Amino acid sequence: MEIIKPTTIAGIMELLPEEQVVFDQIKNTIENTFAEFGFANIDTPLIEKNEILFAKGGGETQKQIFEIASESKDMSLRFDLTVPLARYVSEHFSNLNFPFKRYQIGKVYRGERNQKGRYKEFYQADIDIIGNNDLSIYNDAMLAKVIFEAFSRLNLPEVTFHINNRKLLNGFFESLEIVDTTEILRTIDKKDKIGLEKTKSYLEEIVGEEKSTQILEFLENKLEGLELLEDLEKFEANEKYKLGLSEIKTVYQYMLYLDIPKENIKIDLSITRGLDYYTSTVYETFINGYESIGSVCSGGRYENLASNFSKQNLPGVGMSIGLTRLFYQLQELGIVDKKAKTTEKIIILPMDEKYNFYAIDLLKKLKAAGKNADIYFESGKFKKKIAYADKINAKYALIIGEEEANNKEITIKDLSKSDQETIKFDQVEDYFTNN
Amino acid sequence: MEIIKPTTIAGIMELLPEEQVVFDQIKNTIENTFAEFGFANIDTPLIEKNEILFAKGGGETQKQIFEIASESKDMSLRFDLTVPLARYVSEHFSNLNFPFKRYQIGKVYRGERNQKGRYKEFYQADIDIIGNNDLSIYNDAMLAKVIFEAFSRLNLPEVTFHINNRKLLNGFFESLEIVDTTEILRTIDKKDKIGLEKTKSYLEEIVGEEKSTQILEFLENKLEGLELLEDLEKFEANEKYKLGLSEIKTVYQYMLYLDIPKENIKIDLSITRGLDYYTSTVYETFINGYESIGSVCSGGRYENLASNFSKQNLPGVGMSIGLTRLFYQLQELGIVDKKAKTTEKIIILPMDEKYNFYAIDLLKKLKAAGKNADIYFESGKFKKKIAYADKINAKYALIIGEEEANNKEITIKDLSKSDQETIKFDQVEDYFTNN
Repeated sequence: MEIIKPTTIAGIMELLPEEQVVFDQIKNTIENTFAEFGFANIDTPLIEKNEILFAKGGGETQKQIFEIASESKDMSLRFDLTVPLARYVSEHFSNLNFPFKRYQIGKVYRGERNQKGRYKEFYQADIDIIGNNDLSIYNDAMLAKVIFEAFSRLNLPEVTFHINNRKLLNGFFESLEIVDTTEILRTIDKKDKIGLEKTKSYLEEIVGEEKSTQILEFLENKLEGLELLEDLEKFEANEKYKLGLSEIKTVYQYMLYLDIPKENIKIDLSITRGLDYYTSTVYETFINGYESIGSVCSGGRYENLASNFSKQNLPGVGMSIGLTRLFYQLQELGIVDKKAKTTEKIIILPMDEKYNFYAIDLLKKLKAAGKNADIYFESGKFKKKIAYADKINAKYALIIGEEEANNKEITIKDLSKSDQETIKFDQVEDYFTNN
Repeated sequence: MEIIKPTTIAGIMELLPEEQVVFDQIKNTIENTFAEFGFANIDTPLIEKNEILFAKGGGETQKQIFEIASESKDMSLRFDLTVPLARYVSEHFSNLNFPFKRYQIGKVYRGERNQKGRYKEFYQADIDIIGNNDLSIYNDAMLAKVIFEAFSRLNLPEVTFHINNRKLLNGFFESLEIVDTTEILRTIDKKDKIGLEKTKSYLEEIVGEEKSTQILEFLENKLEGLELLEDLEKFEANEKYKLGLSEIKTVYQYMLYLDIPKENIKIDLSITRGLDYYTSTVYETFINGYESIGSVCSGGRYENLASNFSKQNLPGVGMSIGLTRLFYQLQELGIVDKKAKTTEKIIILPMDEKYNFYAIDLLKKLKAAGKNADIYFESGKFKKKIAYADKINAKYALIIGEEEANNKEITIKDLSKSDQETIKFDQVEDYFTNN
């Protein structure tokens, strides 16, 4: 028979079982935190109608889409979890309670060029709070708290939030009589990457020297936290600016009151989150000491989630973790284990199939005691059996040979220490309670 | 702005949040059981190369496939989890330990016609044990035990396994000098559906009256369990028959010894699992009292998982649950709740935003005590706030108005009883420990 080379599509992450355990621990920790804070899981389909996915106009995204080659060519794989959320909330509007707090952790698809750390299929972990007509600003702080809690439970270095407010920024620009802010926001967003000099010269090209200097003075304010906010209050730009300032102050104070330490929140006026989408709070999240990998969780507040699908006004606030890319980066940096650590697994090794029933007796006893135990039923010599125990990272091998079976005994080999002892069958629970 | 009607593709199950909770409980219970019995999770991509998916030749499946409309047209959505498993085990062969015990719960895609209970996107929950060159028969019993345990934890009526052995069947047919068994197996498989009369006449068409009578006598043996097996031993057909009989006897005895009750195992000679694929044990699983919905978990043993992708000989045994269809059926039959039951949720309702900090103090106290608590931050009248508490199925609403804030008190409304009392802030932990 012709053998077809077994390979996945290039640019897709597929993990070995021991790596999968590490990934799943991260995914489950995030999911459990989201659920614990009262967010509901939704599980939208991976395929959506094209008219839904491209409702906002395709643009760059449309080029990256995986379209389904059905006759009618009217569906594709989702490229994010936000468009499906907008569709979901609009479709099921009358059956949802608002504020609607939902999370979704799922795979999304983009035709990325093959490149290290870029994936065609990747997990996003999204969390959003959607209001009906209005949504209080306190949710912006609560959302950050949930994310902070999730990352705290991951046993990574701590994270720091960089927060900003788009009304504050836009109000400031309007006070400088700058109308089209798109290019400016894009430039500011890249400030840390391209450096101050380049930022300055780009800004000068767009708005001239005077305004460029004013913008950079504003952005480069060296004060921090409440002192920075108080300093910004001195500048009486306009109503939009004042509103933005009041919002970011509230979010900041509530984040503190929710026990996110002061050191872990930075008011960062150069965070813009490029997209037009966001209209108030914007956040990015960095792992302390690993800022170079970029923001690991970003998001912000938007005026209306679903103007394409609904006449309802649905303001919201959301954040998203690019889980697959994050996992890749954590592996590369050696912050997470490449493989799961040695487990507490117990493997029972009957030396002949005639001891299988005795092995099952033992298994039942261990299972009843809540132990992670299993039987290796395959035939073979002692060496093969003990090698299996080693390879699966078992902590104990429980050996049942002729003598053990005849005397109702078990030989226990502690694989981490490579010593062994023989105990009575009835002592097995005691042994594992004390060891 | 033009509004696009927000809808999913027809023939896809999408759940409301309260239904999703019920679905997730089922999914998580199955997953946790698989993991607890030492099976490793793998998470293969949803898209695979066409050459992988169609390695065995496309046939009926290929017509149902969702192909990706990339320029090269060389990938599609997976239609099951078995082909990806075969590819995975072959690709990562040298990094896996055998027997390789894996589970995977994931979505698969088939272009089913729109029809109630048939889905284009649906979950399969698969569990398999793959051997390297050989795999002991005891695994077939252990796999049934894992499935039995998973269903036992779902709070459904009990399940009954129908088990059979393809060697036994084929050995029997060979002894009747029937060479091509495909049509016979297909007919027998439908016996319960089409009835004895039709089965008889179909069989007569294929093999004539005499052999048809012999086949039906064999299948309609009214003995059960070990008695049936002993009776079958009297018939000395050939080596294949004997081997099959010895295998099914071992599987049956081990299932019993693994504490699957006798009443929950039926040796059922008419179970064939149509496909050529299976070569020894075959199983189907029925929910007692709901046999009409068909087998909810089926599978069996196969000689070689991956002959298309590997020169290794990889025998295995596996079972699969069609989770989405099962959930639909359980909902239709009213065996599972349509919505999650009232939760233990506590919702804190500050009557004005000036009590928000006090509300957060209360939230922290409740979270520290491990309670499922949340704050409703939205502005509005008392009526709106309490209506929200009702709608989200909260058990308690904790009201903070002027008086409560001034006196460091909380008014607790038990929404299940509609009575309320006011307690001191410091008493809140005691209250929820005792209530």
